Amino acid sequence: MLTYTLEKRNRESLYEQLYRCIREDILSGRLRSGERLPSKRTLAQHLEVSIITVKNAYEQLLAEGYIHARQRCGYFVSEVERPPEIRQPAHSMCAQPEKEQEWFLDFASGAMDPAYFPFTVWARLMRQTILEQDKGLLRAAPYNGAAELRVAIAGYLRQFRGMRVDPEQIIVGAGTELLYHMIIELLGRDKCYAVEDPGYSKIAAIYESNRVQVQYVGIDEAGLSVSELRRHTAQVVHISPTHHYPTGTVMPIGRRQELLRWAAEKPDRYILEDDYDSEFRFVGRPIPSLYSTDENQRVVYLNTFSKTIAPSIRISYMILPPSLLERYRKNLGFYSCTVSGFEQYTLAKFLEQGHFERHLGRMRNRYRQKRDQVMGEFLHGPLAGRVKITGQDAGLHFLAELQTKLPDAELQRRAAEKGLRLAMLSDYYHEPKETRQHTLVVNYSGLELQCLPRALEHLADIMREETTCTTN
Amino acid sequence: MLTYTLEKRNRESLYEQLYRCIREDILSGRLRSGERLPSKRTLAQHLEVSIITVKNAYEQLLAEGYIHARQRCGYFVSEVERPPEIRQPAHSMCAQPEKEQEWFLDFASGAMDPAYFPFTVWARLMRQTILEQDKGLLRAAPYNGAAELRVAIAGYLRQFRGMRVDPEQIIVGAGTELLYHMIIELLGRDKCYAVEDPGYSKIAAIYESNRVQVQYVGIDEAGLSVSELRRHTAQVVHISPTHHYPTGTVMPIGRRQELLRWAAEKPDRYILEDDYDSEFRFVGRPIPSLYSTDENQRVVYLNTFSKTIAPSIRISYMILPPSLLERYRKNLGFYSCTVSGFEQYTLAKFLEQGHFERHLGRMRNRYRQKRDQVMGEFLHGPLAGRVKITGQDAGLHFLAELQTKLPDAELQRRAAEKGLRLAMLSDYYHEPKETRQHTLVVNYSGLELQCLPRALEHLADIMREETTCTTN
Repeated sequence: MLTYTLEKRNRESLYEQLYRCIREDILSGRLRSGERLPSKRTLAQHLEVSIITVKNAYEQLLAEGYIHARQRCGYFVSEVERPPEIRQPAHSMCAQPEKEQEWFLDFASGAMDPAYFPFTVWARLMRQTILEQDKGLLRAAPYNGAAELRVAIAGYLRQFRGMRVDPEQIIVGAGTELLYHMIIELLGRDKCYAVEDPGYSKIAAIYESNRVQVQYVGIDEAGLSVSELRRHTAQVVHISPTHHYPTGTVMPIGRRQELLRWAAEKPDRYILEDDYDSEFRFVGRPIPSLYSTDENQRVVYLNTFSKTIAPSIRISYMILPPSLLERYRKNLGFYSCTVSGFEQYTLAKFLEQGHFERHLGRMRNRYRQKRDQVMGEFLHGPLAGRVKITGQDAGLHFLAELQTKLPDAELQRRAAEKGLRLAMLSDYYHEPKETRQHTLVVNYSGLELQCLPRALEHLADIMREETTCTTN
Repeated sequence: MLTYTLEKRNRESLYEQLYRCIREDILSGRLRSGERLPSKRTLAQHLEVSIITVKNAYEQLLAEGYIHARQRCGYFVSEVERPPEIRQPAHSMCAQPEKEQEWFLDFASGAMDPAYFPFTVWARLMRQTILEQDKGLLRAAPYNGAAELRVAIAGYLRQFRGMRVDPEQIIVGAGTELLYHMIIELLGRDKCYAVEDPGYSKIAAIYESNRVQVQYVGIDEAGLSVSELRRHTAQVVHISPTHHYPTGTVMPIGRRQELLRWAAEKPDRYILEDDYDSEFRFVGRPIPSLYSTDENQRVVYLNTFSKTIAPSIRISYMILPPSLLERYRKNLGFYSCTVSGFEQYTLAKFLEQGHFERHLGRMRNRYRQKRDQVMGEFLHGPLAGRVKITGQDAGLHFLAELQTKLPDAELQRRAAEKGLRLAMLSDYYHEPKETRQHTLVVNYSGLELQCLPRALEHLADIMREETTCTTN
């Protein structure tokens, strides 16, 4: 007869203790496969517990498959074997991720200054959303996002970007990276995707990680070279015509037309217009989107609120031309929307009540000011006369061409020793190019101004030492 | 000389009007490529506007590439052509999505009852998050999610599921569908993925949409058949061992061990344990996860809060065995986390303060009650004696085998005429099987109880008519 010591005062209930004891005996082989368990009544009397306790323990063992019942015969041990005691290999302990280096000043990170976020307004709208939407918040949004948000985005684009978009054309997703995935599924894995070289390396990384063919197309002073594109087999081209990263090039209308003509020539050619920071233009009116210029439904427009509101707000969207929209609904409409209801409704209010445009206006002023301060330090500080600045009209970075002979890698290595993280234009090329050396990409949005003079002194020192050290 | 009528009282500024007029002339060909524009001063005098107005208009045209500057020579029209006037094809108008049919009662939808959501608590925690986290909320979370949330999930799993998980092993994402994508990228597109047949069709749909090979493996009374799996080439198998959808089968320990042995035999074999509704078990203690039983690091565990808290909250997670974790960090660590900071911190508090477990306890009680009511109507209402119920111990659905000879498609068609949407077990099979007819999958979580008696009368009527109608 099974004999166990069950303790009433244990954290576990009696039935759980009994279940665990019998399970252990089955796994260890003490209770053998096919063996009959005592009846509930017998075991209960033997252990001096209630029949309910035994019944519950047997039922749990039954549910997990340790025992089985035969009608009117009772319970029998099932065929279960103790898994071989394989010691976990050394790497079973979780390696902690490498600690990120702490930088004195980081020119490479495009971090936003969180002080710029309209925190009070956002919190108020969130509370308002909770009050107004109440239970409605808990229903799943349609695959393309909450109607309220799509209407608000379409309204914003009409009013401030001159774009005519039906809210039905908008697909809301948790970040542009995710939307790239969806685009690959929409347009096809058999397609070849062209990206800009130089360019934002994450875009190519995502295509590569998705195992679709990627081709790198060079840019000239007017942006992506269409004649080079024609020498490739790519059907889809992923570009940022309004503000190329990191050169800051704005694609002129002539090149845009050339690119649209290229797309219109074959039925499966598309342009992905990644408009990630078109909002930060400091002179004149916004550059019209390529999407608006296209008359052949070949442009998919993408934008994100993570860059303009806050990185931890994961809301992006894409606008599909009507012909692709039908395909999207049919093939991908089964996917759930990836953004939570709360934030969709809050953002809808933020857009509708004009907070977004006011926020952008304030951000433009602040970033323009910050850009001017950073540029001033570069032009009039310790590097004076040894630096040339370009690409400062838009976006949250500019280029600083340094008068130095130090190769970029060496410059970065020496700067890192002083706690400075440098992003160089040459880093953004797929194929390293000698001719693109010596140009610093200054991502100024997150720079701490008080550290800048010291950082530039370090940089000037490194450039001054170059002749003595390059001989090593 | 360019002559335009500019209106001071226009909604557009003078410079915008001027920019638009010149742009139109360039696009229409009235101003030809290479033509020199008048100097700013001359045009300003001619149009009786300030030089600044002309300067701003020229600069915008310059930025967009309609004109270019030659040093000390002035501004010239660039090569721009008016794109051919292609009329948009008929489908350029956005087809509105088809309106979903309104059902009198929908047995197919697994909608949650929003009345069950702990709204007040969630709203309070959200406010608390806003107050406490403040600016910290706006920093981007690491690729695998906020540390606070991962620690809270690991704590919950330890306390309530007996799972020992390092928070570093957890990857947080905006929904399990998205995590399937990541798993495909992690394990490889060259792998073949096995799914359960019958099963939740969305899982296979996602693999197919990702263009990876999918194999359908049958289940028997112990769940996925490992002997059938061995006849396939699949390296990865996607299962719900704790509660199979839609049969409700719990995989017994013997079959689990068999499956784990299968996985351990080859280095690239993995099991994806989709534990989507393990929380809703109405008898006994929770079934231990396959992940906890595995000693060879071959199980990836997936779960979601969308099912237990609310569909519009898009937070899911997966637990990687340490060996896969390293690969994930290296190959996919560049992806941004897809869940917003606000909701991650709010959910962390919800878990830590014990609200989640209390919420689950209440939900279990309510759903058990609801299940009993729905089962009662089935067993004792108009279908009494013509229905057999199984799979009612767990999850938010059960099976009702109907005594009818009507083929499922016919039954569904007739029910639809009466406003009833029926999900049949046969719908969940990849290959239609004659032997699996006549079993209704009753997803009861969202059923409106007051409509049920009427709905079952309709169903009884249809079953009664069958002899007279099947002769058609």
